[in-house]
Amino acid sequence: MNAARSVRIAVDAMGSDVGPQIVAEGAAIAASQAGDRLQIVLVGDEAPIWSALADLEPDALPLFVVHASQHVEMGEKAPQTFRRKPQSSIAVCADLVRRGRADALVSTGNTGAVVTTALLSLGRLSGIKRPAIASMFPTRSGPCVILDVGANADVRPLHLYQFAVMGRLYAQLVLGIDEPRVGLLNIGEEPTKGNALTQAAHSLLADAGGGLNFVGNVEGRDIFDGKADVVVCDGFTGNVILKLAESILTVGGGMIRQAVRRRWSTALGGLLIKPALVDLMRHLDYETYGGALLLGTRGICVIGHGRSSALAIANAIAVAARSVRSGLEDAIGQAVELEGATRPQVVAGG
Amino acid sequence: MNAARSVRIAVDAMGSDVGPQIVAEGAAIAASQAGDRLQIVLVGDEAPIWSALADLEPDALPLFVVHASQHVEMGEKAPQTFRRKPQSSIAVCADLVRRGRADALVSTGNTGAVVTTALLSLGRLSGIKRPAIASMFPTRSGPCVILDVGANADVRPLHLYQFAVMGRLYAQLVLGIDEPRVGLLNIGEEPTKGNALTQAAHSLLADAGGGLNFVGNVEGRDIFDGKADVVVCDGFTGNVILKLAESILTVGGGMIRQAVRRRWSTALGGLLIKPALVDLMRHLDYETYGGALLLGTRGICVIGHGRSSALAIANAIAVAARSVRSGLEDAIGQAVELEGATRPQVVAGG
Repeated sequence: MNAARSVRIAVDAMGSDVGPQIVAEGAAIAASQAGDRLQIVLVGDEAPIWSALADLEPDALPLFVVHASQHVEMGEKAPQTFRRKPQSSIAVCADLVRRGRADALVSTGNTGAVVTTALLSLGRLSGIKRPAIASMFPTRSGPCVILDVGANADVRPLHLYQFAVMGRLYAQLVLGIDEPRVGLLNIGEEPTKGNALTQAAHSLLADAGGGLNFVGNVEGRDIFDGKADVVVCDGFTGNVILKLAESILTVGGGMIRQAVRRRWSTALGGLLIKPALVDLMRHLDYETYGGALLLGTRGICVIGHGRSSALAIANAIAVAARSVRSGLEDAIGQAVELEGATRPQVVAGG
Repeated sequence: MNAARSVRIAVDAMGSDVGPQIVAEGAAIAASQAGDRLQIVLVGDEAPIWSALADLEPDALPLFVVHASQHVEMGEKAPQTFRRKPQSSIAVCADLVRRGRADALVSTGNTGAVVTTALLSLGRLSGIKRPAIASMFPTRSGPCVILDVGANADVRPLHLYQFAVMGRLYAQLVLGIDEPRVGLLNIGEEPTKGNALTQAAHSLLADAGGGLNFVGNVEGRDIFDGKADVVVCDGFTGNVILKLAESILTVGGGMIRQAVRRRWSTALGGLLIKPALVDLMRHLDYETYGGALLLGTRGICVIGHGRSSALAIANAIAVAARSVRSGLEDAIGQAVELEGATRPQVVAGG
């Protein structure tokens, strides 16, 4: 682990809903903040990328361009995409990582395509059954890592156990949380509560011993309260709550605006509190956290929103660089290898 | 269906976290609002109930008391409770409904105990595989019925299909929504998206034809947006999102308060907008909707929060009365019977 190590990130320049301009801007922000310890390779249709870079003084920054002749649309189905578009910007990014020409990839494109490409091109870490997408939820007491939020719609108890191991290392090494508390998303506090999946997963997690710092079941109401630093769940439930939580800022903000505008006194109050709400929104906004991490593949993959701002893209690149420097990938590989050696019954049970 | 029909509701007076006083108050509010079309039977330890009623002029209101010598604590396990406490206030309420002495029961007690007691004492409607708890979520465009929110942690596709039939009738008959749009909670818009359960359920719902008014998949972000009037899901996911959504008012309100108090100008603004926020909170507050309905049992059961206010209890009683008058129970029974006759392949598939 070397904090000063220079890192090279492959960024999918075609993944934004609004075109490569905003990705180039995000890359420029990240590069100028990180100095010479970070090199960024923008991957995609090179003509528009160069024209986007023209205004950004690319010569002064460690920005590079690699051409990709295809790109994946948001609506395309992931499995077909990988076969049909071997020269897509996502595939070229993954290939750079696979050949050691980049340390990590960042894409704000089609999530399914990024996950499929990472799985098929980079492959899983030895011993990992199912890579998972880890997302950050803002809570009363700081960010909480939730995984899986969508890579695996159906999972088995061992998968949840491995999500816990990976999420814990992420919280510890990348977020710098000393002893991350790991919780299991469930519908009751007692170990016997839940569905067949969570009942079995609870036993696995409780048996894991002190190393995992398992704090038991976490209910829906406990997430924003910050009861755990890492919460594991199946990718169906995780994806539902991620999208629900993301919609709250938009819908809730709109409702507050509407309610406040009805009278002149409340409208004046609304103007006065605006700076406080803008600060709060920034704190809560998922963009601040720079995207979700795909954990368990060979090579770090950060997946951002298609409608990410330049700042969100810069944050996603920074998260990727921090994850590379933290040695997260090796740590996950070692933890799972160790588990495999000492807990064969768990591996067999999956 | 007779809007003027007199209805008798058995209310569990021992179900509140703060004692029978608040339940008696809620009953008095409901009774005084409904006039002589509503009779309320308070069930529980009669001494404290009568003393709670003393201040409320019970002689002037159609309030009755039935003694129950036991009561179920919040932490007790549901299955044991039914056997060990046959004289609990919940069991006595259910017994009044079973013997036709009351039309519905309302309890703010231990949800598991209410569900178990209703299932074992009242039984399921003929053809219903799994009764489900339907809860109301406030949305941009009015309330949305979500079921199941916790009665069934593991479900099969046919169960989700029956939840759709029950939820649709509830929205139509009790909430008065003309052509309720029914959605399936899922993690993608396309019919092929989701886990094994939702993929199979999507086929069942899509095959049901126009009568169900199935609008397809609904994602987490669509719920508060009001994309559907009825959303079906397994009781695990439903319970997680119910508790998550309930916590947002508390945690979000606290965060706004904290952010606003930092500067005098925003604090002043906060004072000015307070009336608008109080109105909004009342609109969003789950208590306004008067609790959740257990659908699919013989006899209407309304389940409220243990920390319900008197007004919330009055609303729960009003929902129970409205459900009885609407003929919801018979409508569900007939719909499922019809399904059983015309769609045997669906029944066999469950």
